[in-house]
Amino acid sequence: MIPIVSIVGNSNSGKTTLIEKIITVLNRRGYKVATIKHDVHGFDLDKEGKDSWRHRKAGAHTTIVSSPQKVAIIRDVEEDLSPNDLRGRFISDVDIIITEGYKNDKHPKIEVYRKDICKDLLCSKKDLLVAIASDKEFDIDVPQMNIDDVEGIVNIIEDRFLKKKRKPSLILRVNGKNIILNTFVKDMMMRSITGMVSALKDCDDPKEIEMKISS
Amino acid sequence: MIPIVSIVGNSNSGKTTLIEKIITVLNRRGYKVATIKHDVHGFDLDKEGKDSWRHRKAGAHTTIVSSPQKVAIIRDVEEDLSPNDLRGRFISDVDIIITEGYKNDKHPKIEVYRKDICKDLLCSKKDLLVAIASDKEFDIDVPQMNIDDVEGIVNIIEDRFLKKKRKPSLILRVNGKNIILNTFVKDMMMRSITGMVSALKDCDDPKEIEMKISS
Repeated sequence: MIPIVSIVGNSNSGKTTLIEKIITVLNRRGYKVATIKHDVHGFDLDKEGKDSWRHRKAGAHTTIVSSPQKVAIIRDVEEDLSPNDLRGRFISDVDIIITEGYKNDKHPKIEVYRKDICKDLLCSKKDLLVAIASDKEFDIDVPQMNIDDVEGIVNIIEDRFLKKKRKPSLILRVNGKNIILNTFVKDMMMRSITGMVSALKDCDDPKEIEMKISS
Repeated sequence: MIPIVSIVGNSNSGKTTLIEKIITVLNRRGYKVATIKHDVHGFDLDKEGKDSWRHRKAGAHTTIVSSPQKVAIIRDVEEDLSPNDLRGRFISDVDIIITEGYKNDKHPKIEVYRKDICKDLLCSKKDLLVAIASDKEFDIDVPQMNIDDVEGIVNIIEDRFLKKKRKPSLILRVNGKNIILNTFVKDMMMRSITGMVSALKDCDDPKEIEMKISS
């Protein structure tokens, strides 16, 4: 499963700037990065008057703009999706996912803290805080890096999330709903399907299998 | 499989306007619509300076903005994806896909023609032309509607693509590549996996199964 790490902190603490720097260093070290930004107030990503904007405005549930280099998809959803849901439904081909915000989500977090801007830390160890990037020292048993020490911060990310062997995973959605499976059933399904697929031509080492059946 | 129909025509013939009207009527008749716009020159959907724009600019392979109502995903791709690929990888929960352009693609087409703007028809029956929306009559054995007769155009779409029973389908991607299966293998895999899934709790009528296995 692709690891998720959240960069949290007060507004104006510098989350986006830190994420930009982390992406640059991770790319330089050969990793592909996905980011997730939570925007509870909604957003208007598309440009007024463009064809894709007009499709959406007219009532398209999903609009895709496709070019040889990149694809953009804007679609309706029924509820606020968690980073977990977003990973399962929309993310593939990357090594790590960095989210901006989602401080109440159950994923490991790095908190950005600036003494001029922030009052208290937002997270503690029980919130899965794995590091603090700050211009101040805290009396807390969590690795602390200077906010400008991007290489040091990326070292922590790399050690904790990218060098570990990934656990095999199975995500299953039926009729649009996530199905929770117990370990035995999950393992049995993964082995059966991986076995079936690996018997196909050119599929003898299936690291990632994506399948969609409609009837 | 979700049906795909392409609206083709010369620049300025009114493709986007017709698509807007078709979406409105399809929505009114209870159908959910996805649209695909082909933009060979690339595009800049995001707004300069926004956090998501900064993530992409810094080198994120995939950037998602998520709100309770909608989700936007912008991601790198390795090649120009066909409507078929886009459907398999990114589209679910809709009844029909309307593409703007893709006139060389092998899907049924409706051509928009205006005598002030267009010279010859771009497509013929062998290009899977199923209707013409025009202000002129052609001597060709294809249904022709007035360009303003949106209800009539949507009747054709509904009769041809939405009233037919959909054929069961299986899309399989292994290590990021589409795998082409022969009918026997496809049928066997579909039945095995549908059978396996329908034995799970609350999954006794699996119309759509999506699965992602990573190891």
